[in-house]
Amino acid sequence: MAAAAPTRAHVPSAFAPSSRAVTFCRGTSRPNHSAAAASASAPGWRRRDPAVSVAAGSAQSAPGALAVDPKVDTLLDSVKWDSKGLAVAIAQNVDTGAILMQGFANKEALAKTISTRKATFFSRSRSSLWTKGETSMNFINVHDIFLDCDRDSIIYLGKPDGPTCHTGAETCYYTSVYDALQGLKHNEDRQVTSTLYSLEDTISRRHEETVTEGSGKPSWTKKLLLDNQLLCSKIREEAGELIQTLLENEDQSRSASEMADLLYHAMVLLRVKDVKMEEVLEVLRKRFSQSGIEEKASRNKS
Amino acid sequence: MAAAAPTRAHVPSAFAPSSRAVTFCRGTSRPNHSAAAASASAPGWRRRDPAVSVAAGSAQSAPGALAVDPKVDTLLDSVKWDSKGLAVAIAQNVDTGAILMQGFANKEALAKTISTRKATFFSRSRSSLWTKGETSMNFINVHDIFLDCDRDSIIYLGKPDGPTCHTGAETCYYTSVYDALQGLKHNEDRQVTSTLYSLEDTISRRHEETVTEGSGKPSWTKKLLLDNQLLCSKIREEAGELIQTLLENEDQSRSASEMADLLYHAMVLLRVKDVKMEEVLEVLRKRFSQSGIEEKASRNKS
Repeated sequence: MAAAAPTRAHVPSAFAPSSRAVTFCRGTSRPNHSAAAASASAPGWRRRDPAVSVAAGSAQSAPGALAVDPKVDTLLDSVKWDSKGLAVAIAQNVDTGAILMQGFANKEALAKTISTRKATFFSRSRSSLWTKGETSMNFINVHDIFLDCDRDSIIYLGKPDGPTCHTGAETCYYTSVYDALQGLKHNEDRQVTSTLYSLEDTISRRHEETVTEGSGKPSWTKKLLLDNQLLCSKIREEAGELIQTLLENEDQSRSASEMADLLYHAMVLLRVKDVKMEEVLEVLRKRFSQSGIEEKASRNKS
Repeated sequence: MAAAAPTRAHVPSAFAPSSRAVTFCRGTSRPNHSAAAASASAPGWRRRDPAVSVAAGSAQSAPGALAVDPKVDTLLDSVKWDSKGLAVAIAQNVDTGAILMQGFANKEALAKTISTRKATFFSRSRSSLWTKGETSMNFINVHDIFLDCDRDSIIYLGKPDGPTCHTGAETCYYTSVYDALQGLKHNEDRQVTSTLYSLEDTISRRHEETVTEGSGKPSWTKKLLLDNQLLCSKIREEAGELIQTLLENEDQSRSASEMADLLYHAMVLLRVKDVKMEEVLEVLRKRFSQSGIEEKASRNKS
């Protein structure tokens, strides 16, 4: 099989600290916010991606349907495709960790995702490749791809350009089994969320209540949302208490507790400013992405 | 089908603020740290879980194999099981959002998970039900279960008692396709992680370098890790700058940037104290879990 030459241009990283921003030691995530930014902000390591040229095809493609770098070919062959030539493919938001959707990939779909960095699946109903976003333009821009220990399950870790679900919801998972069993109505705002984003949702609901007179009960969050001076003094106080756990060698549970307090109060401030935690995490990802390259270079080659 | 009576006892919530902890408006996540704590800390709403009595069986069970609450039965029937009676089931860490593993569930597996709150799958190789942890004791304690828009994919959102992978890794996803294509060795520490935990990993690597003389390059993170006074003054400074974005009505990007700075520096402190972000999120989840019940009660019944 022919190895096509890599075509991506080397451009500077997206890391550009602002005047007050600190320079972090950066990690292993890969920056690439949007489809449009994909080529413009690609760090140098991407140039080393093996190039893949693929054609859409059936789930079980005929030999020779792929024209790929031999390394990619070897990798594709190492996946334990099922009897239909498929493996489960899960798309996950690189910043929030939210599971966006789940589909299936065949060899071509994985090869195309590796090459294009747009999450691509094999549609079982249409028997064809399907790149999420090809109709809606809400692509999932893939930063990394992981295989599980059995090599029969794939994660596309990426940044979505917009809502992933065809309903307009951010993720396809908004039906809670326990809610349904209690007879509660569907609520597309009540999506599967890990703790940080559940807290963010709660703060948002309290914020909505502050603008709807007589809605909901009094709460500490609402008090903070309505009183900037109180909120700011609490953030200062909680930062001080977190620091105290280090300087006075308090136990670990105190540090966890004070960090929880600081995080919560800071997130209330973000709500007042209408800033999402996802935006904060995107800033962090872009800042610490470059030294990930150094870290990778330092690891032994196999 | 007979509706068995709920059997769970009502016990007080796990929310117990410490002397310095603030009382939050709490959200919708469900507390339940460990298997042992499952019954002891179950909040009141769990009493309303429909009870399910199930027997292990083949993927395509004969009618009558389940003895469940009719509501559960209706829900199980609403899932679009494939031709083998299976649906994809993904286990996700409720606190970190990490995808732990992926398997398949049949009707019995989902029913057993709903009832026992231990993530349970149908093992295709053994043709039997399999509760994750039944051998290793590393159960995944399920806090919620979500179905996707097509009702053919399931998320078990839960708290693992220990490493999920049979290799001892926290998750089964530690093989990066792009790393593999660059000839980099497997690294079970380099698991699929969203931004916050990639940053935490980076800080941990810098911390390891501080105890290994001559390892790695100088970095800001290492400087902070080695100088508590500098670290504490930076946390104070960053908290002040975040506050300033509110008080001086700076733009949203400044709030996101200053929050990123504050979060990063606070996470360096956590590393010095050997505290994981997951512990912080667990504290938050336990604090804001109770008002989730109120929120649910306020939603319209269907």
